[in-house]
Amino acid sequence: MVNKKYDVVIIGGGIGGYYSAMALKKGGKTVALVEKNSLGGTALRWGALPVKKALDSFKGIKDKYNETKNIRENLINKWNEDLSILDSKIKEDLINENIDIYIGNGKFIDSKRFTVEDEILDAQYFIIATGTEPHSIKEIPIDGVNIITHKEAIDLTHIPKSITILGGNVEGIEFAALYAELGVDVIVIEKEDGILSGNDGDLVEPIETHLISKGVKIIKGIGAKSAKVSKGAVETLLEDGTIISTEKALVTFMRKPNFPLGIENTNIKTNENNIIVYENLLTDEQNIFAIGDINGILGMAHVAIQQGLSVADYILNGIPVDTSYYILPRAVFTLPEMAGVGKQELELKEDGISYKIGIALFKDSWRGWAKNIDCGFVKVILDEENKILGLWMIGENVSEYIGLIGSVIKDGKTADDLLSNLIIHPSLGESIREALLQGKNRR
Amino acid sequence: MVNKKYDVVIIGGGIGGYYSAMALKKGGKTVALVEKNSLGGTALRWGALPVKKALDSFKGIKDKYNETKNIRENLINKWNEDLSILDSKIKEDLINENIDIYIGNGKFIDSKRFTVEDEILDAQYFIIATGTEPHSIKEIPIDGVNIITHKEAIDLTHIPKSITILGGNVEGIEFAALYAELGVDVIVIEKEDGILSGNDGDLVEPIETHLISKGVKIIKGIGAKSAKVSKGAVETLLEDGTIISTEKALVTFMRKPNFPLGIENTNIKTNENNIIVYENLLTDEQNIFAIGDINGILGMAHVAIQQGLSVADYILNGIPVDTSYYILPRAVFTLPEMAGVGKQELELKEDGISYKIGIALFKDSWRGWAKNIDCGFVKVILDEENKILGLWMIGENVSEYIGLIGSVIKDGKTADDLLSNLIIHPSLGESIREALLQGKNRR
Repeated sequence: MVNKKYDVVIIGGGIGGYYSAMALKKGGKTVALVEKNSLGGTALRWGALPVKKALDSFKGIKDKYNETKNIRENLINKWNEDLSILDSKIKEDLINENIDIYIGNGKFIDSKRFTVEDEILDAQYFIIATGTEPHSIKEIPIDGVNIITHKEAIDLTHIPKSITILGGNVEGIEFAALYAELGVDVIVIEKEDGILSGNDGDLVEPIETHLISKGVKIIKGIGAKSAKVSKGAVETLLEDGTIISTEKALVTFMRKPNFPLGIENTNIKTNENNIIVYENLLTDEQNIFAIGDINGILGMAHVAIQQGLSVADYILNGIPVDTSYYILPRAVFTLPEMAGVGKQELELKEDGISYKIGIALFKDSWRGWAKNIDCGFVKVILDEENKILGLWMIGENVSEYIGLIGSVIKDGKTADDLLSNLIIHPSLGESIREALLQGKNRR
Repeated sequence: MVNKKYDVVIIGGGIGGYYSAMALKKGGKTVALVEKNSLGGTALRWGALPVKKALDSFKGIKDKYNETKNIRENLINKWNEDLSILDSKIKEDLINENIDIYIGNGKFIDSKRFTVEDEILDAQYFIIATGTEPHSIKEIPIDGVNIITHKEAIDLTHIPKSITILGGNVEGIEFAALYAELGVDVIVIEKEDGILSGNDGDLVEPIETHLISKGVKIIKGIGAKSAKVSKGAVETLLEDGTIISTEKALVTFMRKPNFPLGIENTNIKTNENNIIVYENLLTDEQNIFAIGDINGILGMAHVAIQQGLSVADYILNGIPVDTSYYILPRAVFTLPEMAGVGKQELELKEDGISYKIGIALFKDSWRGWAKNIDCGFVKVILDEENKILGLWMIGENVSEYIGLIGSVIKDGKTADDLLSNLIIHPSLGESIREALLQGKNRR
């Protein structure tokens, strides 16, 4: 056993750990990163990023496939290359910063020491960023071949003829969009009354319409009871007794926390789903932080990034960690995309807050004409005094247009405040102005 | 002669007049709009909008042309259709709002009456929005056939084999980009030391490099002395004696104000270049406003839109017109685009203000990888206390990413203020975070 000393040891090489490690090293700390499996984690390696890349790459391939037989095969080869480029990029970024990487399933010896393979890592601070992972229940046993998770789903080497997606949540719908583009027969099972639940119907509608136009079948209001593999296919039994048989089934709705081994050798407290954290994302150990999905605050990649950067800033400069994510931008990477920040109507209704809305279609804007855009809109939600409560968009690339709009909502800006800004002409941003004008003039 | 009474008569159917008319009518006023020529004006009909549309439509057509002979012709036919759709859209928007349109070259009888064709329009308020137009000097006589302006340049029915663009300003460079895509031999003559003067060199460089890669020749530091048509071609004589001969020459650097006729029948004061305006964009007549290029404040489409809307708001609700455009977003619609808001380095150097910069390349971002982006970056400019002075971008579609960022600069936000915002992952907006982090950590 070799003892190594670090200022900070980060456990988990996902997106939160990655950003935290980079910031701490740039700030002058010695940093080690421990990863049990492969760098990048869910967000960078098996989630939003590769799904988005695949959608960008394979958009319309179904139609092209009919023309040229080899296109699909070539694209798949290119895709495998792309994924290995991604693997190396993540690794090289860390190596270029002289961050020591340990691959292996280590464990806490006590609150100051973590052992991995033959090494003992002594650290002033630990940051746990181990995330969550898909897991099976008895009725739906994931085998990684027919009943699969996003990890297998993003490996496109063997594209199935048909797939049942269990869960019409963001993950399920993004994969439905991708597989539909690839020409796969897709069935989505969602036990709630609508897909992408938690979002306003008018924002979900264009995504659902597009999926249906691509041949996706969506079953709503009925959950899956069980799934089993039979003769190389998956039979999914629904609550109403229907049996659906497809080549594969993708399970999206069950995740469990990845607690680090040896956590019982520390004073860290956990509950069933997460590590318990307090101010500045500290655990019950005053030198151990927990960031990202594992702390159970909000399971989203950009929250993990922010927490990773904030904990680094706390360690480096003593700046308190702000975890009040009341202005949380969100995106669904489908075709079209949904993106926005602030409240939606259904939350306001639930809270009994009265509001007004303004909607402007991109196709009615000058640049919409210039770009031949036929889909998508801006929706602003104002309170009675025209303060902006939410700003949402549907359309191609709208995840890029949200940018820093959260900042103006956080500051309590009104429609008039924003209308006093100049907006580039011609740009789709002009639809924000139209939506604000419409909302403001509504009584 | 028929007398017609209106609350507001707008003189000039360009983008400023259009937005003002729409807002006043929606606010309950009776509105007439007088246009001497065709609706839409420079911005909507002969400027940024159609140029952008053409660039979007004709990107890469040069290469396609070599493959299929008819593509170019088909696209040109489609282009003429598109322009007529634009014409009708502008007109229909106004007609749908029940705004009376008068086409003809009218004149002021006095400060309360304006006559056009057989009608006398009585109005409580007039808004002059007549803009500017290209004009000739003796040495460079515009004939509209060989020596042309943007009005002829955007009519693509007869695409020349070669063109000399007089002026490497925004207009000249946007047309250079368009004509280069169409496979035309383009020469740009710019008398300043660099094209797009007034912009930082690192922002201009990617645009210039792209133009050169498309075969555009750029002559800098030498002005044009004269131009004449000879045997169906234009001979341009430069200050150093060089003669350049091309099929056409596009003149971009000379414009003159369109003063309304009969202005001498009012107390409105003018100087050589513009109508003189005071508080709330009022002229020396207390019921006559002047908006857009004709008031000489800032000749940009989005400024005209803002002034049109603001004057409407003043007439409707008594809200004072804010003309302090110290946070002015700007864009150059080339391939790649430049867009941004706030100060650039050269202005800060001139004012002796010290600053720090942070630059993040889009290709280093996760979504840059996902989109195979190989060009473009975010540049933030901070003061010593990390207050944001400017935020600029180069890249595809960046005119869409600026959005409302001006608002945060206007509010005097710091890098840390913005870094406390969550940015969607994966999005190119994450490059803003990287640029801010880099700038902030610079000493």
